[in-house]
Amino acid sequence: MTLILGIDPGSRITGFGVVRDTGRGCEYVASGCIRTGSGPLHERLQIVFRGVREVIQTYQPTMMGIEQVFMARNADSALKLGQARGAAIVAAAEEGLEIAEYTASQVKQAIAGTGGADKQQVMLMVMHLLKLTQKPQIDASDALAIALCHAHTRQSLVPHGLATARRRGGRLRL
Amino acid sequence: MTLILGIDPGSRITGFGVVRDTGRGCEYVASGCIRTGSGPLHERLQIVFRGVREVIQTYQPTMMGIEQVFMARNADSALKLGQARGAAIVAAAEEGLEIAEYTASQVKQAIAGTGGADKQQVMLMVMHLLKLTQKPQIDASDALAIALCHAHTRQSLVPHGLATARRRGGRLRL
Repeated sequence: MTLILGIDPGSRITGFGVVRDTGRGCEYVASGCIRTGSGPLHERLQIVFRGVREVIQTYQPTMMGIEQVFMARNADSALKLGQARGAAIVAAAEEGLEIAEYTASQVKQAIAGTGGADKQQVMLMVMHLLKLTQKPQIDASDALAIALCHAHTRQSLVPHGLATARRRGGRLRL
Repeated sequence: MTLILGIDPGSRITGFGVVRDTGRGCEYVASGCIRTGSGPLHERLQIVFRGVREVIQTYQPTMMGIEQVFMARNADSALKLGQARGAAIVAAAEEGLEIAEYTASQVKQAIAGTGGADKQQVMLMVMHLLKLTQKPQIDASDALAIALCHAHTRQSLVPHGLATARRRGGRLRL
């Protein structure tokens, strides 16, 4: 069993989601949003850093998935996103998590079966896969999708024999 | 006497400079570059975070100046710069420093008397003001310039009576 954190960083709201990868699928553990408020930049970045650290210390995930950004809208929003992303990644690195980056289309492909899925489709699949009865907030849903993508990608990277052993309830940890 | 840190963050090299503001001018304390190498993103950001923290713990500055970015070249470089900036700012905020942002032209104006000064002119003024006999590396020079700008700007924000008291050798700390 592995706990996986997904993070969807933003300059105003950073979504987080934690799932438990049982080897036979994923279970919901927690999700939510870190809101940075309207203070000075360093306070907002500190809120992201401390928020991510608190989530990690509370739920003890060992891996983190985060979205890789290829096409930021413009230089100004890219700078703001980068700052929040830097604060979130440093928090996870300092807590010793393995960190993997996925493009938006990798996340959509893993969750909804197509890289062209929209946010609502991704959310419905997140709800289905994690058996959620209530809609999560959109940033939390995106973070859960990244965590699920990481769980899925890890699975598909497992050599066949090991994956089978794990599926049969072996004690193998990867 | 106040110790001021200047930081010039970048995705490959983060310059730092520490000056001592005696109230009658600034003295050089230290400067250098934090090089992030070519590892994965989270390792590079951790090198910035830990490097800035180490500089702060070594020299014990209480304030940090950092350049405010208005016009990044493009979205991709803005994202990379933002990530390094986020890591550096969080390190300083976690160490409890006061943080101030200055635009490039504010720094040039404070150091060289004109917002249009080029990097070489700024470096020569940094060397002159801090009585350096050797050229610092360019990133370290930029960081020292930001620290000097902060010292200068603080001075000019000091109410007249307080500034006078301090110039006369009073024990006043601001």
